[in-house]
Amino acid sequence: MTLPQGTPAVPPRDPQAVEALAAFGRLAAARGWLAATSGNFSCRLDANHALVTRSGIDKGAIGAADVAVVPLAGPIPPGMSAETPLHLARYRAAAAVHAIVHVHTLAATVLSRADLAGGYVRFSGFEMQKALAGVATHETVVDLPVFANHQDTVALAATIEARLNGAAPVPGYLLAGHGLYAWGATMADARRHLEGLEFLLECTLEERRLHR
Amino acid sequence: MTLPQGTPAVPPRDPQAVEALAAFGRLAAARGWLAATSGNFSCRLDANHALVTRSGIDKGAIGAADVAVVPLAGPIPPGMSAETPLHLARYRAAAAVHAIVHVHTLAATVLSRADLAGGYVRFSGFEMQKALAGVATHETVVDLPVFANHQDTVALAATIEARLNGAAPVPGYLLAGHGLYAWGATMADARRHLEGLEFLLECTLEERRLHR
Amino acid sequence: MTLPQGTPAVPPRDPQAVEALAAFGRLAAARGWLAATSGNFSCRLDANHALVTRSGIDKGAIGAADVAVVPLAGPIPPGMSAETPLHLARYRAAAAVHAIVHVHTLAATVLSRADLAGGYVRFSGFEMQKALAGVATHETVVDLPVFANHQDTVALAATIEARLNGAAPVPGYLLAGHGLYAWGATMADARRHLEGLEFLLECTLEERRLHR
Amino acid sequence: MTLPQGTPAVPPRDPQAVEALAAFGRLAAARGWLAATSGNFSCRLDANHALVTRSGIDKGAIGAADVAVVPLAGPIPPGMSAETPLHLARYRAAAAVHAIVHVHTLAATVLSRADLAGGYVRFSGFEMQKALAGVATHETVVDLPVFANHQDTVALAATIEARLNGAAPVPGYLLAGHGLYAWGATMADARRHLEGLEFLLECTLEERRLHR
Repeated sequence: MTLPQGTPAVPPRDPQAVEALAAFGRLAAARGWLAATSGNFSCRLDANHALVTRSGIDKGAIGAADVAVVPLAGPIPPGMSAETPLHLARYRAAAAVHAIVHVHTLAATVLSRADLAGGYVRFSGFEMQKALAGVATHETVVDLPVFANHQDTVALAATIEARLNGAAPVPGYLLAGHGLYAWGATMADARRHLEGLEFLLECTLEERRLHR
Repeated sequence: MTLPQGTPAVPPRDPQAVEALAAFGRLAAARGWLAATSGNFSCRLDANHALVTRSGIDKGAIGAADVAVVPLAGPIPPGMSAETPLHLARYRAAAAVHAIVHVHTLAATVLSRADLAGGYVRFSGFEMQKALAGVATHETVVDLPVFANHQDTVALAATIEARLNGAAPVPGYLLAGHGLYAWGATMADARRHLEGLEFLLECTLEERRLHR
Repeated sequence: MTLPQGTPAVPPRDPQAVEALAAFGRLAAARGWLAATSGNFSCRLDANHALVTRSGIDKGAIGAADVAVVPLAGPIPPGMSAETPLHLARYRAAAAVHAIVHVHTLAATVLSRADLAGGYVRFSGFEMQKALAGVATHETVVDLPVFANHQDTVALAATIEARLNGAAPVPGYLLAGHGLYAWGATMADARRHLEGLEFLLECTLEERRLHR
Repeated sequence: MTLPQGTPAVPPRDPQAVEALAAFGRLAAARGWLAATSGNFSCRLDANHALVTRSGIDKGAIGAADVAVVPLAGPIPPGMSAETPLHLARYRAAAAVHAIVHVHTLAATVLSRADLAGGYVRFSGFEMQKALAGVATHETVVDLPVFANHQDTVALAATIEARLNGAAPVPGYLLAGHGLYAWGATMADARRHLEGLEFLLECTLEERRLHR
């Protein structure tokens, strides 16, 4: 088979990459972050492709058939999550991003609705801020961006990437009433960023309960 | 054996159907949704029968002896849950319903008491609303019906079905101070609806804590 | 060996009774109800003896060496929980009680402190009230007694039993700032009562958060 | 090999000590106390050395390669947690301390920020106070110290030990916006102290929600 000139060769579904997605899925399912088959995750395979979870599957028990190789420039194969364009746009915008995870948590959903007007949820003074790559002290301010949710995810991806402008200061964002995205240079980094941001969101939600 | 004319043949306890109920039971038990042997679930076997969990059993460890084949038109065998009539009425009213699950959660119990007077709990603007069959966007309003609890479940079923009037707009309802019912065209659908509604209830409860 | 006249023969550590305590311990540990080696449980062996968990052990992994046969009339062997007299008094007062479980939960601890002055936590209108033996409808009022905590558990047991006066209307009570006791005719009954009461306490705590 | 005079011999990584750290790690990970690879724990090997977890590892799956023998007087090998000086200072100050555990929990993080100005979180009237070594009754007051967080952990350790002054009255402290430290004469004691303090923090946080 001869590929048309300029079409990148499609890499295989690397078993290690499949297992990385499956392992994260088991962990996220155990924590209740994937209610009702929600959530989706991916990892970069090369400069032009990512491995992405399919739509509607039980993400606590991912096998090779539950993920697909997707070209970063499209087209997106049938059966993929409607949010696949958000993953692809992030990989295209930032070569250092190798894994992206998205889950639905109570704290992310409630705070993203509460802080949409301001455009971010602010964290300050928490040791856990150091879970984020490049943050070396609690004595700083971390602003997690919040975007309005939109069913046209191609348009939404454009809005998000315009604001993030390549290298985002924080490795994640919130979609209002929807959930949390996080990424990293490896799946371990993406997981650490997600867990750190979720912890910061839970603490912030609790402080608002107390001090309102 | 010759059955009286007009009596439908009784289907066997299909092992796949038993396992579908057992698998849901293990999941719901792990989440703490079946406190004190509460909760009950069922699936349709054919046009005239359903497989229903017995009363008082440990629903985290269901075996074939813990479920019974029940005619949709009755009579209900001894040892079944007092809420069996609610299941049967739903199957009789909607041919597309093939599985029904009922659990007791804190959010369902508390919000159903808070919103009984209004008759529903309203969700709006949550991505998770898309977990419900037929909902394609967060930009809509989902009203989950709330009914007063009643120990006469035959009368209660009639009240419920009169309001739902066949095809309910939302695949579930709340009984005040009691819990959450959800259903679907398959057990996977019923589970997704239950998990989605429970997530929406938890977020709504949290928002009331914050904004009251 | 000849026993003194009037001394009842000591029954062995029945393996089934040991396993009943161990199974409950695994369940309660998984739910986080036994923080810091707290909690204790027992079952009746005969008219004069109970099998009781020892003090300071990991109650999520009970073996035969972790429980002891204790005469209901005493003396209590060394190494038993300081709360053993509360168990023994309950068995002496009510022949129908065959199992007693005690755990430390957040809802039990906080509500018992909040409602000590009134002497009980009141539940009304919850379907879960039917988890308690003898309760057939949600349309009733269940008052869970609250007693002041006391380190002299012999005196405390006398105070409690004087108020309960044999057959308690509710199969459990709270010790203020301490935790929840529940019992039943079998270990399964005791577990169901404990889970039902804990669920009612959690819902009540949530309603106070909302409506205060 | 001849050691320079005055240099204590380095003990090996005792397999039992490794397993004690690993077992605690599995337990703490299951409870969600180690988000984003946070937390660290150690145990004393002899008068001059401790076994300490390395930085950035998955502390729910500790193996021998994930821990290192560290001299109490330093120097600290590369790859250790930035908080290692806090562990070493505690071992140097108190010969009876044989295990130290540090985790990040929501209640510890939120209450340590709320009560930093006062310098402690106060517990009174809880039975769970008896989980702490030397506390025999709920009728006492336990003040858990709170220190301001600081990225210079050598300076922070000096501040902490100056206030604790050898034998601390309570086997633990909070770092503001950071987390909870606890210790004991054995790993079992350290775990019991941590679980007891965390339970007391959770109850206290809940009471503030209710009574504010």
